[in-house]
Amino acid sequence: MKESVVIGELAWPEYARRIGVGQPVLIPIGALEQHGPHMSMNPDVLLPTAIGVGVAERIGALVAPAIAYGYKSQQKSGGGNHLCGTTSLDGHTLSSTVKDILKEFARHGARKVCLINGHFENSMFAVEGIDLALRELRWENVHDFQVVMLSYWDFVTDATIARIYPEGFPGWAVEHGGVLETSLMLHLHPHLVDMSCVPTHAAATFPPYDVFPTIREWTPASGCLSSAANATAEKGQLLFDVCVDGIVNALREAYDARSNGGKP
Amino acid sequence: MKESVVIGELAWPEYARRIGVGQPVLIPIGALEQHGPHMSMNPDVLLPTAIGVGVAERIGALVAPAIAYGYKSQQKSGGGNHLCGTTSLDGHTLSSTVKDILKEFARHGARKVCLINGHFENSMFAVEGIDLALRELRWENVHDFQVVMLSYWDFVTDATIARIYPEGFPGWAVEHGGVLETSLMLHLHPHLVDMSCVPTHAAATFPPYDVFPTIREWTPASGCLSSAANATAEKGQLLFDVCVDGIVNALREAYDARSNGGKP
Amino acid sequence: MKESVVIGELAWPEYARRIGVGQPVLIPIGALEQHGPHMSMNPDVLLPTAIGVGVAERIGALVAPAIAYGYKSQQKSGGGNHLCGTTSLDGHTLSSTVKDILKEFARHGARKVCLINGHFENSMFAVEGIDLALRELRWENVHDFQVVMLSYWDFVTDATIARIYPEGFPGWAVEHGGVLETSLMLHLHPHLVDMSCVPTHAAATFPPYDVFPTIREWTPASGCLSSAANATAEKGQLLFDVCVDGIVNALREAYDARSNGGKP
Amino acid sequence: MKESVVIGELAWPEYARRIGVGQPVLIPIGALEQHGPHMSMNPDVLLPTAIGVGVAERIGALVAPAIAYGYKSQQKSGGGNHLCGTTSLDGHTLSSTVKDILKEFARHGARKVCLINGHFENSMFAVEGIDLALRELRWENVHDFQVVMLSYWDFVTDATIARIYPEGFPGWAVEHGGVLETSLMLHLHPHLVDMSCVPTHAAATFPPYDVFPTIREWTPASGCLSSAANATAEKGQLLFDVCVDGIVNALREAYDARSNGGKP
Amino acid sequence: MKESVVIGELAWPEYARRIGVGQPVLIPIGALEQHGPHMSMNPDVLLPTAIGVGVAERIGALVAPAIAYGYKSQQKSGGGNHLCGTTSLDGHTLSSTVKDILKEFARHGARKVCLINGHFENSMFAVEGIDLALRELRWENVHDFQVVMLSYWDFVTDATIARIYPEGFPGWAVEHGGVLETSLMLHLHPHLVDMSCVPTHAAATFPPYDVFPTIREWTPASGCLSSAANATAEKGQLLFDVCVDGIVNALREAYDARSNGGKP
Amino acid sequence: MKESVVIGELAWPEYARRIGVGQPVLIPIGALEQHGPHMSMNPDVLLPTAIGVGVAERIGALVAPAIAYGYKSQQKSGGGNHLCGTTSLDGHTLSSTVKDILKEFARHGARKVCLINGHFENSMFAVEGIDLALRELRWENVHDFQVVMLSYWDFVTDATIARIYPEGFPGWAVEHGGVLETSLMLHLHPHLVDMSCVPTHAAATFPPYDVFPTIREWTPASGCLSSAANATAEKGQLLFDVCVDGIVNALREAYDARSNGGKP
Repeated sequence: MKESVVIGELAWPEYARRIGVGQPVLIPIGALEQHGPHMSMNPDVLLPTAIGVGVAERIGALVAPAIAYGYKSQQKSGGGNHLCGTTSLDGHTLSSTVKDILKEFARHGARKVCLINGHFENSMFAVEGIDLALRELRWENVHDFQVVMLSYWDFVTDATIARIYPEGFPGWAVEHGGVLETSLMLHLHPHLVDMSCVPTHAAATFPPYDVFPTIREWTPASGCLSSAANATAEKGQLLFDVCVDGIVNALREAYDARSNGGKP
Repeated sequence: MKESVVIGELAWPEYARRIGVGQPVLIPIGALEQHGPHMSMNPDVLLPTAIGVGVAERIGALVAPAIAYGYKSQQKSGGGNHLCGTTSLDGHTLSSTVKDILKEFARHGARKVCLINGHFENSMFAVEGIDLALRELRWENVHDFQVVMLSYWDFVTDATIARIYPEGFPGWAVEHGGVLETSLMLHLHPHLVDMSCVPTHAAATFPPYDVFPTIREWTPASGCLSSAANATAEKGQLLFDVCVDGIVNALREAYDARSNGGKP
Repeated sequence: MKESVVIGELAWPEYARRIGVGQPVLIPIGALEQHGPHMSMNPDVLLPTAIGVGVAERIGALVAPAIAYGYKSQQKSGGGNHLCGTTSLDGHTLSSTVKDILKEFARHGARKVCLINGHFENSMFAVEGIDLALRELRWENVHDFQVVMLSYWDFVTDATIARIYPEGFPGWAVEHGGVLETSLMLHLHPHLVDMSCVPTHAAATFPPYDVFPTIREWTPASGCLSSAANATAEKGQLLFDVCVDGIVNALREAYDARSNGGKP
Repeated sequence: MKESVVIGELAWPEYARRIGVGQPVLIPIGALEQHGPHMSMNPDVLLPTAIGVGVAERIGALVAPAIAYGYKSQQKSGGGNHLCGTTSLDGHTLSSTVKDILKEFARHGARKVCLINGHFENSMFAVEGIDLALRELRWENVHDFQVVMLSYWDFVTDATIARIYPEGFPGWAVEHGGVLETSLMLHLHPHLVDMSCVPTHAAATFPPYDVFPTIREWTPASGCLSSAANATAEKGQLLFDVCVDGIVNALREAYDARSNGGKP
Repeated sequence: MKESVVIGELAWPEYARRIGVGQPVLIPIGALEQHGPHMSMNPDVLLPTAIGVGVAERIGALVAPAIAYGYKSQQKSGGGNHLCGTTSLDGHTLSSTVKDILKEFARHGARKVCLINGHFENSMFAVEGIDLALRELRWENVHDFQVVMLSYWDFVTDATIARIYPEGFPGWAVEHGGVLETSLMLHLHPHLVDMSCVPTHAAATFPPYDVFPTIREWTPASGCLSSAANATAEKGQLLFDVCVDGIVNALREAYDARSNGGKP
Repeated sequence: MKESVVIGELAWPEYARRIGVGQPVLIPIGALEQHGPHMSMNPDVLLPTAIGVGVAERIGALVAPAIAYGYKSQQKSGGGNHLCGTTSLDGHTLSSTVKDILKEFARHGARKVCLINGHFENSMFAVEGIDLALRELRWENVHDFQVVMLSYWDFVTDATIARIYPEGFPGWAVEHGGVLETSLMLHLHPHLVDMSCVPTHAAATFPPYDVFPTIREWTPASGCLSSAANATAEKGQLLFDVCVDGIVNALREAYDARSNGGKP
């Protein structure tokens, strides 16, 4: 069997050995969601998985199977959950999934876990799942289980933003199917992008409130919130590296902080 | 009985009359949460309620009893849920509360509702509650129920920010128990603020990830994420007015948009 | 900041201090429910809150924010949940709310809590919430958390009943929007009562069973189950005092009983 | 196969035939609960079942299998749920059971159902189950499903009480394992009663509040809340007849009321 | 009171005594389900109950009230849940019921429990209920609670099958309302079988997949999946004895295995 | 972008087009589960996914992202859920996931769906998820949504079994990590198998009942229930082909049956 950081690709004795030596478990959490006419619907799973593998190879960690379905797309961050192709879970289902899985890794002996989020709307329901898992683990007398929760784009530095968006950064808010995700996909999975179909409309603008049911006209017909016309594989490489670097440092810092009374 | 926009203060025939003429129902959603040593623990309820009353008096709407307990405080927006005094609900409990209440107002005949959020962490669980309510209302053959979801601080304009924070805006992220909330409380409920106890430490800084269980040392001992030393009642008045104005316009726009095929 | 027994009006250090010295936490639990054409819809919240404050000032306790929405109104105790204005929660939502809040006060360090019920239909779902909280607290190794559950009207003595109802007591069953609640509101919140609109119909009578869906004709059109024509502010004062006195004694007795092996 | 009103004893074609001609379905709902040292733990199931059969034979109805486990015993009505033998469900489990079963009978074509309660603490959770079932049946476009909810002891008339308790009626509150239930069991299932073990202590008295966890000393050691020393089979016969008569009339009245716009 | 192994027929002191000496608790779990035109709808409850009593009398155990409603009938094992008379629970309701009851018997002091299943479709939801109960019991610091889960027909030996089905065994899959259940009912409850109505159609055959909603034509109109024409009371006696014998041995073995490190 | 039957690899307009022309959606449902020392832990996901792709390419269907975590491993079919590496969901979480996803595909317009199961223990919880989804879809007025549920190994014909197991078929029951799964993995993902580590112990044997908590000694230390020593890639090819062929025929038959009144 090949060497791998991917849990699913290991036989259980090797997995047990690595957990036994304290390797962290990284869990990508994504979505099946439309990302415009130029890109496949799986970037929210593929990107945190690839970043997770990159991180795991650097720090000696394990990557769990991604949570492949996420919380409902919101209009101002993903176009809205009325769109065809977007396939989402109720919040409680997602929180329960996170809870159940975290407890299982704890049962195996894992004590350091990281959720790598690839879908904006997942965050709070993942946070709730973590809280519920930690609560039940306390009841199991497990008190040293630590979870880092992060979204990979939060590790893109200002310097990188300046290089990626020389024409000015529109904000993560409208980066759905935009330059960030498209560049990363061009770098990692170019056959899942067709730049000839990239929408070129202006970035979507929204009022400072949400309306339910969604007013569908507010979402561009493409499903993208901004144009990925300036996406390139080179930018993707740059983004990938800065995210992997940032998360590598973050995990070292976070897992140490715990043992050092909060001081990194 | 006195004139009132507050639902709880109306006898049912008057309430039924107003619902019958199409008045929107505004529902404040807050929290019981520590807000530093200089302020009471109820601003997340009092502020959206006061703003709701201000809006209701302008547009002819009704204000429902506030949802008084909210979702768990997060470290980077409220200091964390380990803090004494902060009293929170599980996510599913909060979503269910929102769902149940929305469906009841729909049963009464209300068709335009607005959730006015006063506690950052509530947003996604309120969104889920709205989605669940709309789903069940469809099953009841109610298809014209419209919910606006907003957080009042999103209506503070850049011009106002410039006036409130002449020394530079630290971002909403660290505005927990800071200038915004304290100024509003000084304006609306001055007896619930004691400026002699305002912490003066620097704004908290956090890494781009979260750790669970919370690393308690990362939250300032005061429970505030930034200093409210520059808060004044005048700023509070300014903030209150800009929020009420903004929400008044938002609701007019949103409730019209629906009937106009999305065009405000 | 003003002196207060109201938790929401305290800054967290003062709250923590009081919890630290063992002050009990009193939680009003009410409803938004129609109470006839002569009275506002919030007495089930306002009355237990006022009584709670009265008790807290006497025994050195704290009053939490009221649970403002309650269980579904039943025909024979509140007219039925089909009535306009009555805004209720599913049973599980209410039990979960009670559970979550109790656990939070326990986390703060509170060990003596009292639920002061103002809405008849809440009782069993509050009881369930208490049981679920105690169960989970056991799992957290908290074994000394004590909850008193009461409905304020159960403290009206026979002597008081004789004075309040010289014409004969119709039973609590039909006291919805009747003399008890109306008198208390006249005493505490007179501007929320309009005696010119008091219904004067005879007390409702019901068969010894319930029918679902509600047979609407069985509820008087006023929404009241008996007439409040004999309500007065003086009776309200009397009722308020007897309830506060009774609950003060009850809590002293109950919290002592625990430590004395059940002997008051 | 023998003639029977008991659903479980019918083959499906006969059951389908009776449902097809509009026979009501009566569902006993009981508990497994200690009832003192002189009586078996199943009266809350056996009594409503026997009464249900008696009613069904009179009006041409069907009796469903009893719900054999009920809600948690409360101290003031059943001694408390800490007692050995008492075996109870969480509230949500009981409500869900009631909901699921009601919907199934509706699927078969039943439109008139009656829950015959034999365990005081079940009432509100059964009511919730009914409400949830009616809600989901509306979503299935079933709008003519009618449920009567009753507890059999509510049909004991004042005249009967005077005959059963010549020494004065202590109130239903303390009738747990007392004269009512014991007499009915002596009439219906005498081999499940041993009058030589009847406790003779005075009726339990309780303060006007509940304490959780239960203060165990407040419940008589026997588990009974009053003495059944005066129970006889003759009283049981009397009670049985008055309950069956009362429920027969109630169901005729209730099922008619619906079709008559609420007028019996 | 008569001697009994049936928990419901015991007064609590006798029940407590038997639990105190370590008697196992056997819980029949069945269903209300159509079983063809020749048989009542309660065999899934009556059969495991009778077998449970037989086992209990042999090994000194107790029989709890049966769980009388089970999981939804599946087409290939029970004809499907669309059939009239079949009255089923949602999976979560059934699992919760099993969980709640197991925890109560543990609270009483029972440490050895056996679920005797009489309805094929119950198995996995009972398994889940057991797992949830064991989890919560761990949280209660109960670590020695042991549950045996079995379906009675799994104890019919090959030798018995050869005697019961001399014409060849069609497999348990189509034994719904067939020779096994009908023979057992003829032995135990002959008045609930009418052999003149036995269907004589060939055994149902199904493809290796399931379709939802059920394709109703695939289920024989009788509701039986095979013919019970060859059923006799003598076969029923034989089946009853082999099941009781097998379960008696199984429980001795299983409860010993635990204490012997897994070696029977 | 490359041609694909994999939903995640399509841009939404192409996905919408295919759904629009009526392509079925195939959803693999697997598990992360130990499969012995010689094989990776992901065969329950990889095998139904590969088979799903094979089927989809033959009939013009789409393959959804696999449900990557399944129900708890049972001792007699997967060794038990106490084993390291096995990572499972609570039953309700799995049913909710299936429900949520099915409803989303229905929202997109899909009307023919197939769940391809790769993990024995998933079946009943998937069935429940399907039933819950169909119920809620009825409430959405969707009445023509059809779900086929199957486990791929049920399509291995007797003829194939005879070729795969010339030494005699041990039964699917002990085929966990055995010849079937290992051969398929050797055919499809040979780098995830290491035949040098195949256990050679005899097939596990179990009594006709289950014990909880699991008696760990009953599971072979390898985690396999039988030896895969006779597995080959050629057998894997044979198995793959017979499963794909069988499912292709099944789906044609099933989707036609519906429109033909049940007659294939």
